[in-house]
Amino acid sequence: MRIRMEDGIRDMRAVWLEDGVVRMIDQRELPHRIVVADFTDHRDVAAAIRDMTTRGAPSIGAAAAYGMCLAALAGDGLAEAAETIKSARPTANDLFYAVDHMLDRLSAGEDPVAAADGYAQGIVDRCTAIGEHGGTLVKDGMKVMTHCNAGALATVDVGTALAPMRQAWADGRRFFVYVSETRPRLQGMQLTAWELNQEGIDHAIIPDGASAHYMRDGVDLVITGADRIAANGDFANKIGTYDKAIAAKHLGIPFYVAAPLSTFDFTTEDGAGIEIEQRSEQEMTEIYGQRIAPIGSPALNPAFDVTPYELVTGYITEKGILTHDRIHEVMD
Amino acid sequence: MRIRMEDGIRDMRAVWLEDGVVRMIDQRELPHRIVVADFTDHRDVAAAIRDMTTRGAPSIGAAAAYGMCLAALAGDGLAEAAETIKSARPTANDLFYAVDHMLDRLSAGEDPVAAADGYAQGIVDRCTAIGEHGGTLVKDGMKVMTHCNAGALATVDVGTALAPMRQAWADGRRFFVYVSETRPRLQGMQLTAWELNQEGIDHAIIPDGASAHYMRDGVDLVITGADRIAANGDFANKIGTYDKAIAAKHLGIPFYVAAPLSTFDFTTEDGAGIEIEQRSEQEMTEIYGQRIAPIGSPALNPAFDVTPYELVTGYITEKGILTHDRIHEVMD
Repeated sequence: MRIRMEDGIRDMRAVWLEDGVVRMIDQRELPHRIVVADFTDHRDVAAAIRDMTTRGAPSIGAAAAYGMCLAALAGDGLAEAAETIKSARPTANDLFYAVDHMLDRLSAGEDPVAAADGYAQGIVDRCTAIGEHGGTLVKDGMKVMTHCNAGALATVDVGTALAPMRQAWADGRRFFVYVSETRPRLQGMQLTAWELNQEGIDHAIIPDGASAHYMRDGVDLVITGADRIAANGDFANKIGTYDKAIAAKHLGIPFYVAAPLSTFDFTTEDGAGIEIEQRSEQEMTEIYGQRIAPIGSPALNPAFDVTPYELVTGYITEKGILTHDRIHEVMD
Repeated sequence: MRIRMEDGIRDMRAVWLEDGVVRMIDQRELPHRIVVADFTDHRDVAAAIRDMTTRGAPSIGAAAAYGMCLAALAGDGLAEAAETIKSARPTANDLFYAVDHMLDRLSAGEDPVAAADGYAQGIVDRCTAIGEHGGTLVKDGMKVMTHCNAGALATVDVGTALAPMRQAWADGRRFFVYVSETRPRLQGMQLTAWELNQEGIDHAIIPDGASAHYMRDGVDLVITGADRIAANGDFANKIGTYDKAIAAKHLGIPFYVAAPLSTFDFTTEDGAGIEIEQRSEQEMTEIYGQRIAPIGSPALNPAFDVTPYELVTGYITEKGILTHDRIHEVMD
């Protein structure tokens, strides 16, 4: 992704390996500072996934692959490392997929660095393909809406939901993006708006509750990412996605989910089988360490919600734009 | 309303007149501190409406009435005072209604204090009646959802959306309230949760984007307030209301609007005629003076959205619970 640094524009990934060190853009510091965090132990990588130094299902997957790489290079027990890394967060399918992928490759004798770099590059290639397929949906003059961050930060590079926008912009089409701020962690405001700003793509941040208001005002297209997609097409994504999907359906606006096929979990039949992570109350009741809620009032903080497939116009994948009934064909 | 102070429980209104001084609970200081702000000039009252020292359509109306009272007591020009106060905020019908009401009463020779106190007491009486009518909707064991603050703070005392909950709780029924935090100004988190906590009513704060998630999980009833209701039943309320009304409709959950008849504006045919106040970008991009958005990313901050009457199950008024087609009868 393009990052405007004081000394010029740099191209950087969200997670990478450099001289045996796993490096990540610390997404908790954005948009205020660009801090790169370094890790040399797979346990610290697991902690960085848990504390959201890196976040977004594909970036979590890449971090997990690099964590397994560190474990292999250090001669740590791979089964235990796999367990440690998989337990970092419960919802993103990519986390489990990446760890199992690395276990397969390592047991097949593949070089750890090549295997992990290959896994990360595979994500970027798939996101690029998602951008090529999905970019055709984004026309000149459109108003597009997205939620949370399914951008380059979430996917090593390029993005899932943002990939079609990056591609359309690169192809010279001009459009406007509504970015819902995505409380409580503000990934829309602090990460997606930041990425769009780096790319020079026209956008504005809106409160999460203003989604339907602006949709009725003329949104042409909604694109979000996904953290896990069940076999029937039901999908988990950042809390607030389901509200938007209902509003889009009500108002007749196309609603697309952009995700690589690694996000599909065919062992989960439908959305009812997806575990929803409940995160800490403090993420809601405090901001920058300052309490904003009344003392004595509890808060609920579900990280994700589940949107049923009936509300989805199509799934933008690296193999094309699919309707829910065509997912199985492509996976075969 | 009940307020738990250090020296015991006090009963306090949101706005009142005491010895010729207009006093308001400074709602910008809640839930952290209970500060009472005093005003002796109608221009300062107008400023307090504008800067949201007091907010909520009926409390704005009461503040406006007391502001006109101050003008009359000081011998200020009433036409100019009316203009100053009316220009403080653009959306709440109660503001214009209260000023015109006071002009009528003052020109009829009524005592300014009696007229303003009578106006404020009328609001409280109507809210009490709203509580009695609407309280029947709130059953034992229910899960109820509300948005923003349509509580005692917004309506001098008792509340509109919160009136049925206060009444049901007082009648011994036990239920649970989901309070959406209401970005950007967090009136749900900081005012409604605070009020419910003062009353001892079970509740939890949720992110605005978690509305549909919890609705599907078993919400039985949604009640919001309104800032202006057009002749056909379309109504303006805090941004995020429209999203909730769509989700409630989609999920088959009853959606009620609680408001006194003074909130109905029969000079406005439908929602398209309601002006939506755009508030400052800083309310979105800063919190407690600290910038939270990326430099260079603009933000949109519409204070209200408009929900069409088709999504409303009923209007809880002081004259009973009405469907949109019965509003006219009661107004006559």
